[in-house]
Amino acid sequence: MAGTDRRRSVALAGGPAVVLVRPQLGQNIGMVARAMLNCGLTDLRLVCPRDGWPSAEAQAAASGADRVLEAARLFDDTAAAVADLQRVYATSARGRGMVQRVVTPRRAAEEMRGAILAGQRVGLLFGPERSGLTNDDVALADSVLQVPLNPAFASLNLAQAVLIAGYEWYHLTGEPMPERIDAGCAPLAAKSELIGFLERLEAELDATGFLYPPEKRPNMVRNLRSLFQRIGLTSPEVKTLHGIVSALRGRKRRGDKPDGGAAEGGEGRAGVD
Amino acid sequence: MAGTDRRRSVALAGGPAVVLVRPQLGQNIGMVARAMLNCGLTDLRLVCPRDGWPSAEAQAAASGADRVLEAARLFDDTAAAVADLQRVYATSARGRGMVQRVVTPRRAAEEMRGAILAGQRVGLLFGPERSGLTNDDVALADSVLQVPLNPAFASLNLAQAVLIAGYEWYHLTGEPMPERIDAGCAPLAAKSELIGFLERLEAELDATGFLYPPEKRPNMVRNLRSLFQRIGLTSPEVKTLHGIVSALRGRKRRGDKPDGGAAEGGEGRAGVD
Repeated sequence: MAGTDRRRSVALAGGPAVVLVRPQLGQNIGMVARAMLNCGLTDLRLVCPRDGWPSAEAQAAASGADRVLEAARLFDDTAAAVADLQRVYATSARGRGMVQRVVTPRRAAEEMRGAILAGQRVGLLFGPERSGLTNDDVALADSVLQVPLNPAFASLNLAQAVLIAGYEWYHLTGEPMPERIDAGCAPLAAKSELIGFLERLEAELDATGFLYPPEKRPNMVRNLRSLFQRIGLTSPEVKTLHGIVSALRGRKRRGDKPDGGAAEGGEGRAGVD
Repeated sequence: MAGTDRRRSVALAGGPAVVLVRPQLGQNIGMVARAMLNCGLTDLRLVCPRDGWPSAEAQAAASGADRVLEAARLFDDTAAAVADLQRVYATSARGRGMVQRVVTPRRAAEEMRGAILAGQRVGLLFGPERSGLTNDDVALADSVLQVPLNPAFASLNLAQAVLIAGYEWYHLTGEPMPERIDAGCAPLAAKSELIGFLERLEAELDATGFLYPPEKRPNMVRNLRSLFQRIGLTSPEVKTLHGIVSALRGRKRRGDKPDGGAAEGGEGRAGVD
């Protein structure tokens, strides 16, 4: 999916550190860096990457998230990598035979946000691709983060696990609007415009005899209005609809444009004749 | 992350179809199949895959999600692929200059769940890796699904986009517990066990003179109890703590085991002497 806008800056800072414990493939480290930056995370820590560091494979796979790779820090063991953190989550997809507090990525994001607002430093531990974290690594963490997935097929690759955890973090801290109308450059129509169109449409339909018999008219009008209310029309779209009605009534003029240009030719509420 | 348990079956059925429009790389189709099965989704539809179908690269990348690939259906165009669906979401990371209703994956999951419970068939459209969906493809959809990510670095690969949408679906329909204690095979301690240990600990500390002076004792005891209450101790762990206290008091006996075996040697509340 395209859609990066490099002019827009990241408002986030101080998100959780991502600690990769003994990662195997440089490619996966690069994909983790990309997933981190997708989610506004930049503090990458590497514990003994198998194939050395820096890594050309990592850079190739990072798809431009170089700043995350360049700022990555190396550590000799997991304890050193989390030494400055006050709250640590170990990601794991399987039971350990240990007593563990297990949370979803969503709950972890809520907790991390609370911790960070309280001035704490937090981090997420991810194990090697093949084997995952050791029990000794998990024992360094406060809680286990487990992604709820199909229990019959729950294996995620490293970057995907980072992405889900980071996505929940970003979702919570970025507070995205769950739903909106993207009207491009066009403003949404004011109710007066919409009502103007509906009254005009109803008048045209009355003229054709469509809204008949009279006792059914109120209900037909309500249903029609409900339909157009649900669309979330823009101002140019209302003008286009006026043009369409004119055209269907056989009153389309040369030069009318389907994108609302009709209004310039006199269409619109005032133009009803 | 490991953790697949093939003995556990997928309780989900009838989730959204995943429609890949003109996917380029077989490898990405395989990774999509894996991400789908991670999230309990199985209805994969392919519109004109560039490199043909079936694809050995797809199978290699599916990491065992063969059943999704085998059941995949081919279509000549996007309209045919969504013909039987009643609600369609087009995934897109960028504005289109079109008027669009834009929702988060979370809101889309809520809506899809409602639609499916109402007997409707729903689907998710994903475009080619490089270019994304065309505006004509988007115009076939009811709404646009946009993943909230760092606006300065929002590019996701195909399988990651599918994973996020599927994860939200699974999260909603699977209703995971946000937080739990995984005690392995061990039962969580009953409060009577915990209180028994605390009373024993306080008695031992009284004997050493630690809980002094007397006017501060109630507060010290409350703080101590609060600390142990927060842990979420299991029954064997309480026995282990009894053993630890005995050991620290110089009363550790030969044969006491750190995993709670001490209790078998007479430790526990009744064993306080």
